Amino acid sequence: MLHKQKGDQKIMVTVGIIGAGRIGRVHVESICTKVGNAKIKALADPFMNEETDLWAKKMGVEITTKDYKEILADPEIDAVLICSSTDTHSPISVEAIQAGKHVFCEKPIDHDVAKIKEVIDALAKNPVKYQVGFNRRFDHNFEAVRDAVAAGKIGDTHIIKITSRDPEPPCADYVKVSGGMFLDMTIHDFDMVRFLAGCNAAEVYVEAAVLVDPAIGEAGDVDTAVITLKMENGAIAVIDNSRQAVYGYDQRAEVFGSKGMVATGNDTASAAVISNVDGVTGEKPLHFFLERYMDAYAKEIKCFIEAIENDTETPLGVDDGLQPVLMGLAAKKSLEEHRPVKIAEVAV
Amino acid sequence: MLHKQKGDQKIMVTVGIIGAGRIGRVHVESICTKVGNAKIKALADPFMNEETDLWAKKMGVEITTKDYKEILADPEIDAVLICSSTDTHSPISVEAIQAGKHVFCEKPIDHDVAKIKEVIDALAKNPVKYQVGFNRRFDHNFEAVRDAVAAGKIGDTHIIKITSRDPEPPCADYVKVSGGMFLDMTIHDFDMVRFLAGCNAAEVYVEAAVLVDPAIGEAGDVDTAVITLKMENGAIAVIDNSRQAVYGYDQRAEVFGSKGMVATGNDTASAAVISNVDGVTGEKPLHFFLERYMDAYAKEIKCFIEAIENDTETPLGVDDGLQPVLMGLAAKKSLEEHRPVKIAEVAV
Amino acid sequence: MLHKQKGDQKIMVTVGIIGAGRIGRVHVESICTKVGNAKIKALADPFMNEETDLWAKKMGVEITTKDYKEILADPEIDAVLICSSTDTHSPISVEAIQAGKHVFCEKPIDHDVAKIKEVIDALAKNPVKYQVGFNRRFDHNFEAVRDAVAAGKIGDTHIIKITSRDPEPPCADYVKVSGGMFLDMTIHDFDMVRFLAGCNAAEVYVEAAVLVDPAIGEAGDVDTAVITLKMENGAIAVIDNSRQAVYGYDQRAEVFGSKGMVATGNDTASAAVISNVDGVTGEKPLHFFLERYMDAYAKEIKCFIEAIENDTETPLGVDDGLQPVLMGLAAKKSLEEHRPVKIAEVAV
Amino acid sequence: MLHKQKGDQKIMVTVGIIGAGRIGRVHVESICTKVGNAKIKALADPFMNEETDLWAKKMGVEITTKDYKEILADPEIDAVLICSSTDTHSPISVEAIQAGKHVFCEKPIDHDVAKIKEVIDALAKNPVKYQVGFNRRFDHNFEAVRDAVAAGKIGDTHIIKITSRDPEPPCADYVKVSGGMFLDMTIHDFDMVRFLAGCNAAEVYVEAAVLVDPAIGEAGDVDTAVITLKMENGAIAVIDNSRQAVYGYDQRAEVFGSKGMVATGNDTASAAVISNVDGVTGEKPLHFFLERYMDAYAKEIKCFIEAIENDTETPLGVDDGLQPVLMGLAAKKSLEEHRPVKIAEVAV
Repeated sequence: MLHKQKGDQKIMVTVGIIGAGRIGRVHVESICTKVGNAKIKALADPFMNEETDLWAKKMGVEITTKDYKEILADPEIDAVLICSSTDTHSPISVEAIQAGKHVFCEKPIDHDVAKIKEVIDALAKNPVKYQVGFNRRFDHNFEAVRDAVAAGKIGDTHIIKITSRDPEPPCADYVKVSGGMFLDMTIHDFDMVRFLAGCNAAEVYVEAAVLVDPAIGEAGDVDTAVITLKMENGAIAVIDNSRQAVYGYDQRAEVFGSKGMVATGNDTASAAVISNVDGVTGEKPLHFFLERYMDAYAKEIKCFIEAIENDTETPLGVDDGLQPVLMGLAAKKSLEEHRPVKIAEVAV
Repeated sequence: MLHKQKGDQKIMVTVGIIGAGRIGRVHVESICTKVGNAKIKALADPFMNEETDLWAKKMGVEITTKDYKEILADPEIDAVLICSSTDTHSPISVEAIQAGKHVFCEKPIDHDVAKIKEVIDALAKNPVKYQVGFNRRFDHNFEAVRDAVAAGKIGDTHIIKITSRDPEPPCADYVKVSGGMFLDMTIHDFDMVRFLAGCNAAEVYVEAAVLVDPAIGEAGDVDTAVITLKMENGAIAVIDNSRQAVYGYDQRAEVFGSKGMVATGNDTASAAVISNVDGVTGEKPLHFFLERYMDAYAKEIKCFIEAIENDTETPLGVDDGLQPVLMGLAAKKSLEEHRPVKIAEVAV
Repeated sequence: MLHKQKGDQKIMVTVGIIGAGRIGRVHVESICTKVGNAKIKALADPFMNEETDLWAKKMGVEITTKDYKEILADPEIDAVLICSSTDTHSPISVEAIQAGKHVFCEKPIDHDVAKIKEVIDALAKNPVKYQVGFNRRFDHNFEAVRDAVAAGKIGDTHIIKITSRDPEPPCADYVKVSGGMFLDMTIHDFDMVRFLAGCNAAEVYVEAAVLVDPAIGEAGDVDTAVITLKMENGAIAVIDNSRQAVYGYDQRAEVFGSKGMVATGNDTASAAVISNVDGVTGEKPLHFFLERYMDAYAKEIKCFIEAIENDTETPLGVDDGLQPVLMGLAAKKSLEEHRPVKIAEVAV
Repeated sequence: MLHKQKGDQKIMVTVGIIGAGRIGRVHVESICTKVGNAKIKALADPFMNEETDLWAKKMGVEITTKDYKEILADPEIDAVLICSSTDTHSPISVEAIQAGKHVFCEKPIDHDVAKIKEVIDALAKNPVKYQVGFNRRFDHNFEAVRDAVAAGKIGDTHIIKITSRDPEPPCADYVKVSGGMFLDMTIHDFDMVRFLAGCNAAEVYVEAAVLVDPAIGEAGDVDTAVITLKMENGAIAVIDNSRQAVYGYDQRAEVFGSKGMVATGNDTASAAVISNVDGVTGEKPLHFFLERYMDAYAKEIKCFIEAIENDTETPLGVDDGLQPVLMGLAAKKSLEEHRPVKIAEVAV
């Protein structure tokens, strides 16, 4: 097997992956083709079938199973990636931590703060490595923005602006179970605001509407929003969201400060530009999030493996999983009560 | 005199200008060099001196005076431009209207809604042409954005974003008398939001801070703000302001809708770009507002003169002068009371 | 008259304009509205008619005439602008120089080197100010490129690239009398190459074709060309020309050197960009040369007037008029003989 | 082994790689991580050592050897990649063809036309798949340009422009053995011109100089060039080359035609742009060719494997290997004889 041949000098991290859905498969592929010093021993999914089993074996996965507990029980496995359904993230996190496994957990850990606190408590007792899957921090564009801020190139941060618009709206059924736009979509932007500000949010105000699809409104959610945040360092952040940008997946950031501004636009399939009687036309932003963030998905796992290898902090700990959930809950409360809401109000 | 030779077929509009400060002089120059079918008969300023008199005569102005009432009394004068200090805008407007002159009034008409209503009342009795000086509507970039929206190119409007940052902060003394940032600076952005949305604002929420200059805070004002607006057509608008962008006068707009997005960046002194070991570097935005908007200043006067010539509506009537003041007052109230404020609350 | 009121401290240059065609009128307007310290006393054109006379009077021109010799004979006139047909440029230049007038002569001085040398001889005897109308040197974009080169920002110059494409081809009749593409169109690019290189060309090689309009080929000319030049400082320059770029007037330059590159693109009517399902589309280059270069036309006259006022060299002397003609003649010879041709071969 | 698990439905192509230098390793990595339906059975290199052997085994290569003939003799191996030194490309190509292996040969096949013709002859007798390694055709930017041309978006092609500048010059020793700039560097651009034009070149003219490093001149080569080509379809192409662009690896293309223009710029590490008092600065082009073209290297191998699987033409046959060499030889002759040289003159 490919990865067994590696790692003579370095530790080879043995990984188990829980969940063989879209994101689980992305991580399998990343580890098999892009991440060194890690091998996947086992892949668990309650709906494991022949097709998935065959695919996994071809990718070099040794064992497939329907029961994730086999992974937690396997003493050879150092680390688990939790890619199962959202409601299982926190309980499996706790179990895995208790089993002494390092944990990479897809976002969100949970929508219920109490559940996240159980994970925090488990980590207090078993201080394994724990990383939350906010992949956008590892995107080359957002990293470059963050690096410029961290290097002091824009001085003190005054204003942070995030544009985050999906290419297509979800079905109304999805928003009923997803926790709503703030918890399934904006949660990434809340993390990005923290990443770029280098601190937590203090207060949130939401202005939102149903402008894309009335069915989303009937399902109790919004599809368009402008969210203002007061950050603990005094900066003001603003996120604008839409469930549907017909020109593609629009993911931009801008940080403005005392010495200047750093901003990033979108990635495109090519740099080609056509000039004709209709104008000067370049390509649309990449449409699909997996296309835009594929390298970021690989990089987050690489960083997780490195944190294990080097026994260092993961780049995104459990508090980084908690804070965006708090921001999302505050956003929901702001929308309901039509007023600015302090993070402290929801961080019970 | 230059302009007397014009206008054989068309009406030649005879203009008097009240106020020979910076903006008054801009209008004198525009009319003398860029606007056809208008001539300046008189220029009034209480501080009229030899230097200004000489300059005016060179520009082709027939009469200079310290008393604007001479202009209002002159039966040959068809129209007046009110470029005097802000506190005189509304009373001179009323006097001019009563004297039967068409009026172009610099913004703001007044900070006091009651005073603006006196102008509205005067116009009800003497329906002359009345135009307010929100020059940015006549900027080529913002016009192109508005034209795209009006042509239906982006479908229904969902989100409007305005970035408006000055290159340098005013002195703290200025903000004490200017009415504060929302009334002296954001007022232009409030007008731009209305221009791009094609409707009035319903509600305003402000998140603001003093991040540029503590002296501004001591003077009772803010220098950094993110202002969210709910528009009457359901769109959400957001303005971000700073009193100091070290890279220049940053004036951008973006309108996002059901069929796409239209956005504009800044103008630069040239399109030249240097690539070297430090990166790929283009020019900063034009630094000075008169440089950025010089053509817009000429165009707004041209439109005013045309409205007189053709007996049509001016592009910006008295209500267009009132609404941004209401938005500014609502913004101030929102900042003070830390809550969203409806326009109706201040439109007493 | 407007300009009589000016110039108390400074010399007021009195100008006569010979030729009331398109470019003559551009200069009349520039002087009347944008150039200080100059006034137009007289405008001469053999086809002077009532309409032109009326227009000139409105612009503030004192005298109109069919006979340019009246201008040369007028002792009050300091300087003449020669905007008449190309074949008259050199003889009127000589007459004007002999009459002691400063001369601004539209390009080209002549297609016949011997005729240009007559102008040189006349100037040797009567050293008045002489400027040739290569307006593009005064364009904000090309100036910025030249300034970067002159400031040493790209180090030693290695490669110069000029793209110059007209929006629409001329009729075939025009190219029969214009001297052909190299002398009516590329001549501007030859000047630009010299401007950016800061030296003369040593050798020219042409690859050309008739790809736009067969009628141009039947008239004995080409409509598409790539012209390579060896410059005296060792740099290599390349110009690409087309008589028809359907997307507009395409005027770009790039200078590459030991320390980097400076390049400029085109001007557009606005910075607005639309993103929709078809792509991300900005505006085409400005279509019409008068629109693109209007400010450059005013600036070249301003510089001419200043050279007279300050008794300094004009920015473009008679040799700057000669060299591009030599380059054009060498280009024609290269095309005919299908080989590189040295400038020395045509500079007899 | 990873790849043995693949290919149940499809043919699994078994590959041998000859040459374990930089480019050989790139192909090993591509096949192991990005190309499906292929496995590497053997890697040969006369300098095979323990480190390379270990690396290869880790990548999943079954056999390593110093003798490429072992690969040619292995009946299980379907295809070989020739990544050895340039002088061995044509003889090993012939041997491999005779052994019935499909061949992917790095560029150039040879600098000697007679040697390439031996490969052509061998293919005539043994019509295996043969592909030449002009990787840039598979770059996303150049593909997008080509696709636009092929889709008729720019109409008939009139002018093709290629900018190709290396970030750092080679040492003078290299140019002595490489065949010189036209054969080691411009050869890629010659291929690109053919790719974008969709036809062969008819004639070449070179203007070149030594401006980067005198040692290159002393070694008998040039380091800066502008190369004009007349294409068989009537279009004119121009390539500008430099051995040193201090701002990075500059690889651009522009195709201009009767209906418009398509152009591509460079790739950058990120889309981040910083605005400060010094200007508005984006990232430099990617510096290293492996970084810029990594995906293109994988894609060319993918296409080669697919041509074998589907029994279709390879995208770049032996004539595509021959033509750029002819263009390079014509360029050398043009430089020596200082005249345009027809391809027919060197295609003996």
